[in-house]
Amino acid sequence: MWVMSRLEVWEERTEWWLVAAALVFLGAYATPIIWPQIPADVTRTCHVVVLITWVIFWIDYAVRLGLAEDRSRFVRRNVIDLVALAVPMFRPLRLLVLLNLITVLNRVGLHTMRGRVATYTGFGSLVMILVAGLAITDAERGAPGSMIGSFGDGLWWAAVTVTTVGYGDIFPVTAAGRVIAAVLMVGGIALLGVVTATLASWLVERVSTENERVETATRAQVEALADEVRALRAELATRSEPPPG
Amino acid sequence: MWVMSRLEVWEERTEWWLVAAALVFLGAYATPIIWPQIPADVTRTCHVVVLITWVIFWIDYAVRLGLAEDRSRFVRRNVIDLVALAVPMFRPLRLLVLLNLITVLNRVGLHTMRGRVATYTGFGSLVMILVAGLAITDAERGAPGSMIGSFGDGLWWAAVTVTTVGYGDIFPVTAAGRVIAAVLMVGGIALLGVVTATLASWLVERVSTENERVETATRAQVEALADEVRALRAELATRSEPPPG
Amino acid sequence: MWVMSRLEVWEERTEWWLVAAALVFLGAYATPIIWPQIPADVTRTCHVVVLITWVIFWIDYAVRLGLAEDRSRFVRRNVIDLVALAVPMFRPLRLLVLLNLITVLNRVGLHTMRGRVATYTGFGSLVMILVAGLAITDAERGAPGSMIGSFGDGLWWAAVTVTTVGYGDIFPVTAAGRVIAAVLMVGGIALLGVVTATLASWLVERVSTENERVETATRAQVEALADEVRALRAELATRSEPPPG
Amino acid sequence: MWVMSRLEVWEERTEWWLVAAALVFLGAYATPIIWPQIPADVTRTCHVVVLITWVIFWIDYAVRLGLAEDRSRFVRRNVIDLVALAVPMFRPLRLLVLLNLITVLNRVGLHTMRGRVATYTGFGSLVMILVAGLAITDAERGAPGSMIGSFGDGLWWAAVTVTTVGYGDIFPVTAAGRVIAAVLMVGGIALLGVVTATLASWLVERVSTENERVETATRAQVEALADEVRALRAELATRSEPPPG
Repeated sequence: MWVMSRLEVWEERTEWWLVAAALVFLGAYATPIIWPQIPADVTRTCHVVVLITWVIFWIDYAVRLGLAEDRSRFVRRNVIDLVALAVPMFRPLRLLVLLNLITVLNRVGLHTMRGRVATYTGFGSLVMILVAGLAITDAERGAPGSMIGSFGDGLWWAAVTVTTVGYGDIFPVTAAGRVIAAVLMVGGIALLGVVTATLASWLVERVSTENERVETATRAQVEALADEVRALRAELATRSEPPPG
Repeated sequence: MWVMSRLEVWEERTEWWLVAAALVFLGAYATPIIWPQIPADVTRTCHVVVLITWVIFWIDYAVRLGLAEDRSRFVRRNVIDLVALAVPMFRPLRLLVLLNLITVLNRVGLHTMRGRVATYTGFGSLVMILVAGLAITDAERGAPGSMIGSFGDGLWWAAVTVTTVGYGDIFPVTAAGRVIAAVLMVGGIALLGVVTATLASWLVERVSTENERVETATRAQVEALADEVRALRAELATRSEPPPG
Repeated sequence: MWVMSRLEVWEERTEWWLVAAALVFLGAYATPIIWPQIPADVTRTCHVVVLITWVIFWIDYAVRLGLAEDRSRFVRRNVIDLVALAVPMFRPLRLLVLLNLITVLNRVGLHTMRGRVATYTGFGSLVMILVAGLAITDAERGAPGSMIGSFGDGLWWAAVTVTTVGYGDIFPVTAAGRVIAAVLMVGGIALLGVVTATLASWLVERVSTENERVETATRAQVEALADEVRALRAELATRSEPPPG
Repeated sequence: MWVMSRLEVWEERTEWWLVAAALVFLGAYATPIIWPQIPADVTRTCHVVVLITWVIFWIDYAVRLGLAEDRSRFVRRNVIDLVALAVPMFRPLRLLVLLNLITVLNRVGLHTMRGRVATYTGFGSLVMILVAGLAITDAERGAPGSMIGSFGDGLWWAAVTVTTVGYGDIFPVTAAGRVIAAVLMVGGIALLGVVTATLASWLVERVSTENERVETATRAQVEALADEVRALRAELATRSEPPPG
């Protein structure tokens, strides 16, 4: 029987609380970016909420590190978590926790490999565009020479970038913006790759099903035949002995 | 025997009428966009024709919904139809009905999976570029700062966008134009994916045919052999019994 | 025995003459584009040579059409040839004859499917960039607002376009230039697709070779076994009969 | 037994010295590019170090050519080395020696085909972006109309180019810069292809594992069965002979 480690028990129990924290973080992070003319005290509240979720994620990370059996392996495997927690610029990466929402979709009944890949890709792309749009608007608005004046511009830029179209009507001019863009471009290449690979895998399978009219012999089938022959031999042995009697 | 549902009978019977309605819609939609200097009453007639085809598509949707056995499933499966009917900006999506024209091509003799995929991709890309070119010209011409002055510009922009080249000589500046662009970019990624996947599937098959000189044993073959052995055993049983006599 | 049709005999015999004609055409077509300050009479000579090769290609097409058994099928299968001959703007397409040079490479020893695909792709891309660079320089130089002043600019533009990078420092402004660009973009998508598909097919094969330690039973093997059993049964029949004697 | 040729012995022994020389070259090549305000004598020292590593690579090439059994084949197989040594503009290609560092990663335990491909791609892309960023900054800074003022700009341009996004905020204006860009674009297409192919190969395998619940009969299995039948026949022969006695 497969017993869950204490780390896995913790991760399963806290999963939904972290998704909730990420959604709260998303709201508090997005509000002052989408509506910059918001009253100053709302903005301040939002910053406090962002800080609180940040502390929650740190506590979760610390507990998980404490529960892990092989700690150096845990740190290596969760480098992204650490980066997202430690570097203020990568705060939006914390939203990747939202990918856990996909488990709900899985329960709805996507049991095939390709179905899961397609769901992750679609949902992940939307989260990626949304988060990149927020982050770039946050990083660029107000910078000298910036072309991004609103969240709409940020979203549009994210869509143009992730699809590798790159018109050049909007491009980041700050160092933080360029780092966000580089991450998004890598995401775009991965997106293209996943879409193509899923289609190719589907097509390879369909075509091979079409071609294969020949069913290959199974191992079980040959084993049954071998049993038959062995029985025949045993029978022959018993039948052949009486004659001398 | 497979009996068609009433919904399928309706869809088969109305198929060509809808394609005809879509072609009429295309003409009436495209005319004032391609020739903006057309007399005002021609433009008005076009708008009326567009409205009539819109009503026809609504009626068709209502009848299909009425005939469907599982209505909530029907709505879920035909979300694109509903969006194309309800949101004025997505009117051009109604032209997707033109994809039914491919069934003609299928009758000409494309029976393989890959042949069908290639035909859909080629025809679908052309329809997509044409429709996107019309829609962006409609949305952008006359907008302040717009770079699209004619249908030719719109077509050129659509080709540059769908191939993800994205020079940036022309890009949408209105919200409606950006939405059209986002849809087209997703289409471009899908196009790239389908082209690559079709080629990969073809090449995987060709290479595996080249490598395979070994024919694998079939299930039928092993079954025939098992019959042979069983017959042998039966024969042995009948032959071995006489001796005691 | 497979007998060549008269059309195939003609095509094999003229193959090298056509490649030679295409090379002469390339030289005569490229010279006034690459060196626009060339003396007027050299330019005139080049135009005459281009005209002569054009007539040669027309004669070849006519002879092939005359020799074809199914003429309407021949026309359908050679649409590109006809377009390249009839439309002045598509003259450079005649250079596709140069792809026959690949047969030389094939003789050097590329016998695998993938080797041939890779060779065609590499050589075809180079020809495509070269030809597109010449054609765009021809079409755009001197046009109002044009950004292409030399063959070097044209080559650079072709490389930026075929890889779908599309900086937008140079883009066509004439209708002819846009048509050339559209053809090149389609070529770029095909190029990306072929590169990816070749790599994917290679990797799928390598990985499946790595995984497969199990050799599947062959048809011949099971047939030999069936022969053995049949012989056993025959022997049993002859041995079992004597006892009563 | 497989005996190493003298060339292979040399290559294995010098491998790490060449990697060290490449790292020294990287430092000496990069320093004046990244910090252009460096004192003149440091710059001069760097140039001398670059020259020394260049001589070392020439000596290595000469020794390997001397040890090779088939010299014309050696030259053909190592064209890139020769180009990197002979053409000053391609000096950075010498950094490709750094790819040998991957053998360290291999020792850490990447034994699967796909693991190796992924490692080469990731590491190779980083080296490619770094080297292209250095080379373009070297080639473009100070050129009239150049948009690249610092190594940061160069890196940003390399990332935008290799992912085929191509905003067009920065593009090369010198001939050397355009050649570097063309090489990087080809690298970008290859990168896209490798990422997609690796994903596709992984997915094809996972899906085929999912589908295959049937284990095919193995050759060994059928052979064992044939032995059984042959034994049966032999036994029958010995048993059937006594009766006449």
